[in-house]
Amino acid sequence: MVVVMEHNAKEEKIQNVITHLKEMGFDVHRSDGVNHTILGAVGDKTGLDMRQLEVLDGVHEVVRISEPYKLASRMFKHENTVITIRGIEIGGDEVIVAAGPCAVESKEQLMIIAEAVKNSGAKILRGGAFKPRSSPYSFQGLGEEGLMFLREAADKYELLVITEVTDVGQIPLVKKYADILQVGARNMQNFMLLKELGKIRNPIFFKRGMSSTIREWLTASEYILSGGNREVILCERGIRTFEDYTRNTLDISAVPVIKKLSHLPIFTDPSHGTGIRSKVIPMARASVAAGADGILVEVHHDPDHAMSDGAQSLYPDQFAKMMAELRIIAKAVKRRIGS
Amino acid sequence: MVVVMEHNAKEEKIQNVITHLKEMGFDVHRSDGVNHTILGAVGDKTGLDMRQLEVLDGVHEVVRISEPYKLASRMFKHENTVITIRGIEIGGDEVIVAAGPCAVESKEQLMIIAEAVKNSGAKILRGGAFKPRSSPYSFQGLGEEGLMFLREAADKYELLVITEVTDVGQIPLVKKYADILQVGARNMQNFMLLKELGKIRNPIFFKRGMSSTIREWLTASEYILSGGNREVILCERGIRTFEDYTRNTLDISAVPVIKKLSHLPIFTDPSHGTGIRSKVIPMARASVAAGADGILVEVHHDPDHAMSDGAQSLYPDQFAKMMAELRIIAKAVKRRIGS
Amino acid sequence: MVVVMEHNAKEEKIQNVITHLKEMGFDVHRSDGVNHTILGAVGDKTGLDMRQLEVLDGVHEVVRISEPYKLASRMFKHENTVITIRGIEIGGDEVIVAAGPCAVESKEQLMIIAEAVKNSGAKILRGGAFKPRSSPYSFQGLGEEGLMFLREAADKYELLVITEVTDVGQIPLVKKYADILQVGARNMQNFMLLKELGKIRNPIFFKRGMSSTIREWLTASEYILSGGNREVILCERGIRTFEDYTRNTLDISAVPVIKKLSHLPIFTDPSHGTGIRSKVIPMARASVAAGADGILVEVHHDPDHAMSDGAQSLYPDQFAKMMAELRIIAKAVKRRIGS
Amino acid sequence: MVVVMEHNAKEEKIQNVITHLKEMGFDVHRSDGVNHTILGAVGDKTGLDMRQLEVLDGVHEVVRISEPYKLASRMFKHENTVITIRGIEIGGDEVIVAAGPCAVESKEQLMIIAEAVKNSGAKILRGGAFKPRSSPYSFQGLGEEGLMFLREAADKYELLVITEVTDVGQIPLVKKYADILQVGARNMQNFMLLKELGKIRNPIFFKRGMSSTIREWLTASEYILSGGNREVILCERGIRTFEDYTRNTLDISAVPVIKKLSHLPIFTDPSHGTGIRSKVIPMARASVAAGADGILVEVHHDPDHAMSDGAQSLYPDQFAKMMAELRIIAKAVKRRIGS
Repeated sequence: MVVVMEHNAKEEKIQNVITHLKEMGFDVHRSDGVNHTILGAVGDKTGLDMRQLEVLDGVHEVVRISEPYKLASRMFKHENTVITIRGIEIGGDEVIVAAGPCAVESKEQLMIIAEAVKNSGAKILRGGAFKPRSSPYSFQGLGEEGLMFLREAADKYELLVITEVTDVGQIPLVKKYADILQVGARNMQNFMLLKELGKIRNPIFFKRGMSSTIREWLTASEYILSGGNREVILCERGIRTFEDYTRNTLDISAVPVIKKLSHLPIFTDPSHGTGIRSKVIPMARASVAAGADGILVEVHHDPDHAMSDGAQSLYPDQFAKMMAELRIIAKAVKRRIGS
Repeated sequence: MVVVMEHNAKEEKIQNVITHLKEMGFDVHRSDGVNHTILGAVGDKTGLDMRQLEVLDGVHEVVRISEPYKLASRMFKHENTVITIRGIEIGGDEVIVAAGPCAVESKEQLMIIAEAVKNSGAKILRGGAFKPRSSPYSFQGLGEEGLMFLREAADKYELLVITEVTDVGQIPLVKKYADILQVGARNMQNFMLLKELGKIRNPIFFKRGMSSTIREWLTASEYILSGGNREVILCERGIRTFEDYTRNTLDISAVPVIKKLSHLPIFTDPSHGTGIRSKVIPMARASVAAGADGILVEVHHDPDHAMSDGAQSLYPDQFAKMMAELRIIAKAVKRRIGS
Repeated sequence: MVVVMEHNAKEEKIQNVITHLKEMGFDVHRSDGVNHTILGAVGDKTGLDMRQLEVLDGVHEVVRISEPYKLASRMFKHENTVITIRGIEIGGDEVIVAAGPCAVESKEQLMIIAEAVKNSGAKILRGGAFKPRSSPYSFQGLGEEGLMFLREAADKYELLVITEVTDVGQIPLVKKYADILQVGARNMQNFMLLKELGKIRNPIFFKRGMSSTIREWLTASEYILSGGNREVILCERGIRTFEDYTRNTLDISAVPVIKKLSHLPIFTDPSHGTGIRSKVIPMARASVAAGADGILVEVHHDPDHAMSDGAQSLYPDQFAKMMAELRIIAKAVKRRIGS
Repeated sequence: MVVVMEHNAKEEKIQNVITHLKEMGFDVHRSDGVNHTILGAVGDKTGLDMRQLEVLDGVHEVVRISEPYKLASRMFKHENTVITIRGIEIGGDEVIVAAGPCAVESKEQLMIIAEAVKNSGAKILRGGAFKPRSSPYSFQGLGEEGLMFLREAADKYELLVITEVTDVGQIPLVKKYADILQVGARNMQNFMLLKELGKIRNPIFFKRGMSSTIREWLTASEYILSGGNREVILCERGIRTFEDYTRNTLDISAVPVIKKLSHLPIFTDPSHGTGIRSKVIPMARASVAAGADGILVEVHHDPDHAMSDGAQSLYPDQFAKMMAELRIIAKAVKRRIGS
């Protein structure tokens, strides 16, 4: 950390800041410039609130040099994290596609959709059993029955299962059925949930909060990583902006930014990122072109009657066509998409 | 709901939309205009995803007439909700001030602060025992011990206690000590938590999510209200915008907007809303001038050594001066601030 | 337009609204539903401020059916607009790449860069002669001399010239040298400038304002189109959001959205959209994958010494590599990139 | 400026950065810490693009110490700027209210409104003669005739005139009739216009751009100030956020922030800031409570028939009531509002 003192700050103010820094456990390295005295503070203080220093008398500015996250950082671990589940590698050469309905509605529904997405090359089946809906009057999911259907369909078609967990109390149940546990955008800073997920050993699919900066997202991932669970998959799912034609604005630039800052795999979710069926495929293509390690897409065989998010779900034949296009694009970024 | 069909939509498309609306349980009222056929759909479908209709063939636009919330709406209940706790009325003529440290640090700390804020006219003591911090490496709160200190200080100085609950599992414990339970901005859409809070009978202090529209906020409050807990106090605490000088942008216009849309009391939190001590007082004054029913302010007797958010905490004498200014402003809006 | 009256609005209020609508020149078509009276207003009133109706007594909501733009709309003109300049088609099968330095600095600079980008497949040379810089203390451009250098380099390497015009008074001069006139993001709502550009016959490269919705952007384009200049090329260049790692957030979903709403060609500018050299190529790939008709990229042979925006300029060899990748991606969207 | 080198950056990289800094005209002051080498760069380089340094090899971060603006800064001029026009002081003890219609429509209209606002205590008459409308199909203003009406009404009721100038070419005309020239939000970065306004001697009423940070706004004001025109009045008029209930989000915290950073007077515009008549008065009260030097409010005697922005205009009797409330609030901040 670097503390820049005000122009011609008095010596007693400088000493006061030095005292504070030392109380906080830093080693202090002073440098007197022509106009400004600069204090370098050395030490590992990841959780510090820099504003504590900014309000001290005579301080002009405080500059963080180290990021507020560490285990998620590429400085901490240089090579890409590759997560292997039953032979499927996430974060490796292959771009991984997870597909399925927004909500699990019935066993029949899942079987039809699982077969279709498997045939087109998906590796993971997605589906919600506990649905966090903005209104209490909307369909809230099938609960454990939905989890059972997911597992059964996935086993039949040799897919992995990814599903959302919305509360600490659900973890044991969801773990029983799912391979990968999803944390939704609205829970990105539900720290109690994240802490508990740090204690288990299933990979966590960790969506970006709708109004979170990339820095806050990586910092929140530390709650999981520092608990001992190092298998975190990040997923960009659209941020909130003033533009209202799309439901959210899918921040595709987060893909190359995460690739630089972190070693963790990065997916996108073009379905929630746009909220409109006809925009999902272009944004899926853009995600792979930008270097994403995978995408999560909603597919429904009868979206007009879906109980949740039908308006953004692809038809199975659209999904098949999308996969064909993605295979071409993968080559441009030296990746492949399995069949 | 009004469904506007496309210019010259074919009869079969119109019939298809009518069929869908009826399947959804609506009564349909058709009107053929010169250019557009318009379908009025009547029925109580608060949880509906309108996009389900927007993607149907031939539909130009779908317009919601009723809001997605109802119990929170002033249409549902015309008179202001006034919540009375041990003789203190929230939402009545008096502007209520809640004050205290960000985090409970020790019994001594709380006693000093409680006495100071009581003397200046505060009615509620605030303080966090379970702190949801963006980094796992920051101070996370004292837990139950903190709750005990809060209760003790509040009882001594005849104040109410407001404190945050961050997880379903904490509710029984927090309820034991607090009068009012706070839901923080990051948990505004933690629906599992909200559902459980709908089952208890303590008033809930319900902060707006940092990227939530007013409509989403009121809709989320339905999770509490529809569970049977009708004592919800709303609190605007700053929204996320591109401006980075302040930590958030306190949306003061939310005060008159909520007053129109809802019967629930509305507070603001100028401490989190700005993140900078010197901006707290001007924004507290602005809140009361705009018609807020109360404010929540961080006060610390030694903010330089506070374990959380010291940079935005007022000194006790600043707090006293602020209260004097607020008393003048309250008159301009035909309110008063008790001494 | 549809005016939805309040629940059980009194007849006199309904009549008052009808009178207003007729005064405004609308034909009114009334429909009395079970709960709400709905008034359909028919007529061509593109410039109307709907809030004028919303504040009338008894009005619940006013819904615009027609968009505020028309000449830019695909409803008005169904086929894609293809602009042909000296044999180069913009908006056709070929994805067109415009490249060059941010600012024109010298003749030598331009000659080196023009040759490099031409060799890699660019069709248009970009460069700024009048630079709208956020600070008056930054380099403001070479003026007419810069325009001459641009023309000379473009002619030598058979490229078109695109350059920015920042004020009405510059139009005659810029027109003398440039093929395509650019309107920068900051001038998207400089309506005096747009009106004048509607009177000339050069194609206009029309960047989206940093905080403009797509609807506002298309509406602003009407200032040019309604003046008689129908050759407008839209360019998404990043919108302002809370994320500050990138300079702006390139809204790639604007590409498929524009393709649906409008017949005009749509480009992206990944250089300004990210502000960081290492993010330009991934976002260029994503743009072509999403269906863009072209991209605008900053290239500089010596970006460390560029007088403007060097930090986001590609080296010529990076540009060549990018073009090779784009050629593969173009196939996935049934397009091509000329060599 | 402080350049922080990467952890263990090699000596040759450090030397390269030093060379660059010296080429740019800085004096360099080196400090080798335990982990990081820090380079302090001293010199007056207000217009510098810091990213030029950030992309150099081995650079971790570049920190600006001085702000990108100087003449607008309170560091440059400590005392408040007070602008006196015909005995009216802007930026002094009195809170100044400017009021009038959005657009000048007729002489009769202006006379009625001018009389009303004068009687309630306004000191400045506002009205638009050249209207920058988002749609070319909306009313564009009366032009010079409107300016004449403004002058005549203002003279009769002893008010100052404020009106908008939207293009360089209009300056001589507008100057003839107006006391204060307004730059609208959409032109905040129309640098050609700002440069010309720097050459005249009328006070400039300078609105914040809808998506501009406070830093960008002050930096843009340097275009006027550095031209020699030191009489700039800043006006916060609402920023663009995701919230869509109000037209914009009036950033009232900009008032105390500007008061700290700058010596220039700061107004707010609650009419454009909310876009809704019933929210104008609460936000006007909030502005004065926050410390604004004045407000700009739209008033119309017959807003239902206003040609522009009627929905956000106050009736004269609402304006009178607002002024009475503001007089009470002014006392709380040790200000007054003249009668």
